[in-house]
Amino acid sequence: MMKIDILTLFPAMFDGVLTESIVGRARAAGAVEIEVTDFRRFANNKHNTVDDTPYGGGGGMVLKPEPIFAAVESLIGTTSSDSAPGKPRVILTCPQGTPYTQQLALELTKEEHLVIICGHYEGYDERIREYLITDEISIGDYVLTGGEIPAMAIVDSVVRLLPGVLGNDTSAELDSFRNGLLEHPQYTRPYEFRGWKVPDILISGHHEKIEQWRRRESLRRTWRRRPDLLERAELSSQDRKWLEEMQAGSAGQKESTE
Amino acid sequence: MMKIDILTLFPAMFDGVLTESIVGRARAAGAVEIEVTDFRRFANNKHNTVDDTPYGGGGGMVLKPEPIFAAVESLIGTTSSDSAPGKPRVILTCPQGTPYTQQLALELTKEEHLVIICGHYEGYDERIREYLITDEISIGDYVLTGGEIPAMAIVDSVVRLLPGVLGNDTSAELDSFRNGLLEHPQYTRPYEFRGWKVPDILISGHHEKIEQWRRRESLRRTWRRRPDLLERAELSSQDRKWLEEMQAGSAGQKESTE
Repeated sequence: MMKIDILTLFPAMFDGVLTESIVGRARAAGAVEIEVTDFRRFANNKHNTVDDTPYGGGGGMVLKPEPIFAAVESLIGTTSSDSAPGKPRVILTCPQGTPYTQQLALELTKEEHLVIICGHYEGYDERIREYLITDEISIGDYVLTGGEIPAMAIVDSVVRLLPGVLGNDTSAELDSFRNGLLEHPQYTRPYEFRGWKVPDILISGHHEKIEQWRRRESLRRTWRRRPDLLERAELSSQDRKWLEEMQAGSAGQKESTE
Repeated sequence: MMKIDILTLFPAMFDGVLTESIVGRARAAGAVEIEVTDFRRFANNKHNTVDDTPYGGGGGMVLKPEPIFAAVESLIGTTSSDSAPGKPRVILTCPQGTPYTQQLALELTKEEHLVIICGHYEGYDERIREYLITDEISIGDYVLTGGEIPAMAIVDSVVRLLPGVLGNDTSAELDSFRNGLLEHPQYTRPYEFRGWKVPDILISGHHEKIEQWRRRESLRRTWRRRPDLLERAELSSQDRKWLEEMQAGSAGQKESTE
């Protein structure tokens, strides 16, 4: 069973996310063990301070190295961050990190133990980066008040991929990014809603044509919204033909509304 | 005061995030009003179902249009999604959306009313996309079990930028991405920790040299980790000279450890 340790100054932020929905069910079913630790407990001074002003001046406060080193070492029982087999990944969530992707989520599912450190917006003492952690991960190019929401995103994306967590085992495979493309449009009942109907193809019962329509719409959406993804996607010769048709079509006529 | 409405099937997931830390303080101080609504309340059938199987077959469930249309319309008091001034932004969080950035967070701070719809992993009926919402936002290229954590990320990133929310008004300006670059390394006490010392320049007291060092390290980190950001960053001629030196240096010698 995978173990995930989260180090934070705001443990109560995790209350709802770790007890509700899929992550809550996965914990209840024993698919993952998740523990949240307040690293203020490891402050080594009488005022329990975990941050201090930056050397060299400037605004904001910087997280001190001692409490975070002590907290991580209490969890992993070592004083080094070398990457021997079986050693946990010690992850820092921060805007300077490697951009998080579904590929990295899949990679993390293979670990037995993850430690995720949530900083707060002011920043970390650089020695934490240099000597303690194994990974710096950024969930996107925007600034948050702390690393708690990024830690939730990492936990959620990893836990849902663990064996037995999603009720329908095919769902994880059918997601966006399963093949590097955005998902095709989906429709459910009612067939007609305020005059807007479901596309005929989807009620044709012709399985092969439906799959072709879905693939083409998936390609179309990716091409229109995220052409950067097409460069890395696995494309068949049929896919490339469809893309050429779309590109040729858009050159000659006004783009249809999507 | 900005109003944010969140529509979700898992309102309890928001308990911790909306009461703790900066967002909790901002609400308490009256800088923002945030309300979480369970859109299952708007299900129009006796079993309170909000999803159904997809037309055309395949795994997973798809969110039906009626409850979400009804919930949004109860909040914004209209049946259209046209973009007249004063109309709220109705945001869908999904992997197919526009990638979220700090620029988009800044743009959203100018709105009076945001409505954020959190789907669940199976997907949305396409008519919600086509006829109800104004924005689709993706917080990154990874799959989550639902739109709740993305909604938290959007709320957190927007609220911290609202006037008066951060105690130190300079902090928001001093973040990563303030100028399109990653942040420089930060250090705080102790000066020496386990034999690892703070760089001499930071204790020199020479303010101008410290600023130069920080700018150069910010450029170095961005160049090494996220060269894609350099293409959009505002760079001075001094910045470009430093970058050229780094590139020349790395060509001739082994890259120093960072």
